[in-house]
Amino acid sequence: MFDVKVYVTYKDSVLDPQGEAVKGAVHRLGFSEIDEIRIGKYFEIKVRKSARPVETVIEEICDKLLANVNMETYRYEIGEEV
Amino acid sequence: MFDVKVYVTYKDSVLDPQGEAVKGAVHRLGFSEIDEIRIGKYFEIKVRKSARPVETVIEEICDKLLANVNMETYRYEIGEEV
Repeated sequence: MFDVKVYVTYKDSVLDPQGEAVKGAVHRLGFSEIDEIRIGKYFEIKVRKSARPVETVIEEICDKLLANVNMETYRYEIGEEV
Repeated sequence: MFDVKVYVTYKDSVLDPQGEAVKGAVHRLGFSEIDEIRIGKYFEIKVRKSARPVETVIEEICDKLLANVNMETYRYEIGEEV
């Protein structure tokens, strides 16, 4: 079993209006030292060992389901095999 | 300036129906080796140096705005000062 963490974020060239809105809220709470907030998705995935390498499985799932590759980019970390 | 990454996830005791739904979709795509998916939020935050320690700023923002501390838990990493 592998513990995989996947982070999906907007590409830098894509505006993040939700992050801008949260930044506004943070400033109104008095935290003027916050310069930028960008919001992404975070997935914790447990993968059983199979014939396919875990990297292949994760990349296919990200490309097909978890990330919109037109606007988003992803990275992942594969934890130690348990 | 600090680069801070914040991860907000449901507490383990809280069901994650969105994660369950995505797991079902992944299985229908043929990835039966996926045992569990839990979905969280991910924030990339740029914090300017101020009189308050960056840890205090981040924890207050998480408690007040980014996480619902009844159902969610958070952790953060503070990147090197730039």
